[in-house]
Amino acid sequence: MTTQSKNAAFALVDWGTTNLRVWLTDPAGKPVAEETTADGMGALARDQFAPVLERVLDGLGAAHDLPVMICGMAGSRQGWREAPYASSPVNLADLAAHSVTFQSHQRLIRILPGIARKDASRPDVMRGEETQLLGLSVAKNVSSGLACLPGTHSKWVKLANNAVVDFATVMTGELYALLRQHSILRHSTGDDAKVSATDPVFLQYVQIGLSKEGGLGRLFSIRAASLVGDANAADSSAALSGLLIGTEIRDASAILDQTGGDIHIIGSGSLGLLYQAALSIAGFTPFIQDGPALVRAGLLNAANHVLNNAIRAAE
Amino acid sequence: MTTQSKNAAFALVDWGTTNLRVWLTDPAGKPVAEETTADGMGALARDQFAPVLERVLDGLGAAHDLPVMICGMAGSRQGWREAPYASSPVNLADLAAHSVTFQSHQRLIRILPGIARKDASRPDVMRGEETQLLGLSVAKNVSSGLACLPGTHSKWVKLANNAVVDFATVMTGELYALLRQHSILRHSTGDDAKVSATDPVFLQYVQIGLSKEGGLGRLFSIRAASLVGDANAADSSAALSGLLIGTEIRDASAILDQTGGDIHIIGSGSLGLLYQAALSIAGFTPFIQDGPALVRAGLLNAANHVLNNAIRAAE
Repeated sequence: MTTQSKNAAFALVDWGTTNLRVWLTDPAGKPVAEETTADGMGALARDQFAPVLERVLDGLGAAHDLPVMICGMAGSRQGWREAPYASSPVNLADLAAHSVTFQSHQRLIRILPGIARKDASRPDVMRGEETQLLGLSVAKNVSSGLACLPGTHSKWVKLANNAVVDFATVMTGELYALLRQHSILRHSTGDDAKVSATDPVFLQYVQIGLSKEGGLGRLFSIRAASLVGDANAADSSAALSGLLIGTEIRDASAILDQTGGDIHIIGSGSLGLLYQAALSIAGFTPFIQDGPALVRAGLLNAANHVLNNAIRAAE
Repeated sequence: MTTQSKNAAFALVDWGTTNLRVWLTDPAGKPVAEETTADGMGALARDQFAPVLERVLDGLGAAHDLPVMICGMAGSRQGWREAPYASSPVNLADLAAHSVTFQSHQRLIRILPGIARKDASRPDVMRGEETQLLGLSVAKNVSSGLACLPGTHSKWVKLANNAVVDFATVMTGELYALLRQHSILRHSTGDDAKVSATDPVFLQYVQIGLSKEGGLGRLFSIRAASLVGDANAADSSAALSGLLIGTEIRDASAILDQTGGDIHIIGSGSLGLLYQAALSIAGFTPFIQDGPALVRAGLLNAANHVLNNAIRAAE
């Protein structure tokens, strides 16, 4: 056990489809040790979760009585142990009470639930993002408004009074990758996917995506622009990215029935900048939030919630 | 030479990406012999077109002086001989005058051009469909209104006075296949893609696709419906098909700025029935037209046009 890990009060775990990320933190949530591995849920059989986590915790010198709080796909039906979805609308402060608890290697493990929108007219699910939203609520005092979590499956979330009142998933990142890799557009976009938020072609296609002409009906024009025009591979990539992000904003705004106002982009790096530029064009006021910091804040809050309840129960 | 092929006046050729289809017809366009092979442009190097066509024509017993009229991808830059796009708006009767002519195996070969929309604000191209539209004009006396040619890349065409005045391509069929094969939706749709035009789930999702909630923002709900609801694989396939076709109609109508009225669906079989049902819901009056018959009528008209011009020039 290192000096740092001796001060650890919690083991906080973000266990997604592609990565496992573990932080040991002090009682205030400050990381004292951390590790990220490629042991995502997608790469693991059910009986591999326990030994993988134990190996990482041992490597970080985590004491055996350290409370472990997990969020993400480890709690899915195909994961380690199912943590059934909480139904929206749901207060973020109530998520910890819906976690599943079990023993593994003499450790007490808790996995937070995802959130499901069970309305048959538009079913939807999230798992992992709810913990970032909890972090946004407790660490950034954002209790209402919109959040946009861009990615493979972008989540759009409407918050009110620290509760998730509605949300929608848009498969923008997956579509972008599919179209670049497998569709006829691959002949135009080439291999290099780097797109800049200040590229005029990106910004032009954001506008098209936001307009009534946006959407599926404009994808082929990106191919045609390189057949009858002089669009090069970089232009085509920027056009595809702009069209899909603009269309996502248009469609998600329509579904959630909200245009303009504050929106919190949870996601850093170049993707966050693309969404910041596109959301500004669409009339929103975007704020970029750091995803890993929020998930840690959410996990910490949930861990404290459980701990305090246990103390109260013992008193 | 068979008795039938002795009566042949023309060799009409529809040479697409995946298939080669050849008809020998009498002077009135009635087929006297025909053959379809899998020698589409996508499977051929440039120097393979001539021997492949010669083999098929020889097999059908075509005389060496039979005029050959070709449409489709054989005329693309990656095909046999490029027939540069005619620019829209373009009168369908003028297409034959834009064909490229060359000798091959002592035969006189003509390839019809595609049509390009070169407006940089929304470039688009078609190649092969223009000949079906010519057939619609000359064989069905349809001189104006909308045509919808569903498929891998659906074409929507606005006709006026026997001219193509505007058109848009929507990659609906390609997206349907990509999403079923490669996206997260494959876990819900399974392998069997058979969808019926009377399936209530198909019809429900057509409505969603047509609404302001349609489009990319609803794709993930198909996955969620099998996670939190009881949607089975057939439901998920019907939902995906309905959502994409409804969205195509919504988006193409917006781009071409026309909703309702007569629309000619060029495409038979089950796909034609799905579009017929969806277009009816959207408020159009759909008529199903037979694609191969129209392409033959278009090729015949172009061949006669060239022949008559040659006779006039000789007089």
